[in-house]
Amino acid sequence: MTTKKTKTRKNDPGVRTKLFIAAETIGVGKINLLELVGECGSISEAARQMGMSYRRAWFLLDSMQSGFEQPLLITERGGAGRGGAVITPLAKELIRRYRGHAELVEKNSAEILSWMGAVQRTSIKVKGDS
Amino acid sequence: MTTKKTKTRKNDPGVRTKLFIAAETIGVGKINLLELVGECGSISEAARQMGMSYRRAWFLLDSMQSGFEQPLLITERGGAGRGGAVITPLAKELIRRYRGHAELVEKNSAEILSWMGAVQRTSIKVKGDS
Repeated sequence: MTTKKTKTRKNDPGVRTKLFIAAETIGVGKINLLELVGECGSISEAARQMGMSYRRAWFLLDSMQSGFEQPLLITERGGAGRGGAVITPLAKELIRRYRGHAELVEKNSAEILSWMGAVQRTSIKVKGDS
Repeated sequence: MTTKKTKTRKNDPGVRTKLFIAAETIGVGKINLLELVGECGSISEAARQMGMSYRRAWFLLDSMQSGFEQPLLITERGGAGRGGAVITPLAKELIRRYRGHAELVEKNSAEILSWMGAVQRTSIKVKGDS
């Protein structure tokens, strides 16, 4: 146990996958957002919970949508304030498939992650400190 | 066969992995650069072949190096012009492991890539066109 602090990233090697579909990219951030919109039934509430602006969330969802022929979201104009949003079966299938794929990749990454753990720099320079 | 053109990305779904080591990220671009430096024996020549500035190549290599305790590159001061660069056994092992991992991920991505191919938008808006 050390008292070292890093502002950048925690000290375990990791792996992430990004999918390319049509002219768009899909990574874990967009998938998490889409899932949260489904849980909240609202883009603004999902954005709030993820600590991002409504505008940013809308941009990410719109960019994801550009990859697909069919809709991922059905939005409803609400009476008071912003309307609700429902994710479609296509969105649910995307989330399920993305999670399954990420799990498969994780399983196949044990060897390289363990090697990286052995050779990585142990003293991390903290970026942003002056 | 269509005559549609896109400036963004070719129209096949794909997958890429990014590795996180210490506070750095390693993707296929940095690995390709490192490998090319090894083949050319020179950072400036590798940069030229990849169509990037020497400054940019140096930045990418330096950022990659920050993830590792031991050196990936040995640079030599040349007589005339910029000196040569030799990649270390550690760098060679990194390249080999990265490629092996990427191949494993590719093998495990057939299902999601085929699904994405079926649901992706077929008419791609060309970004950057006016």
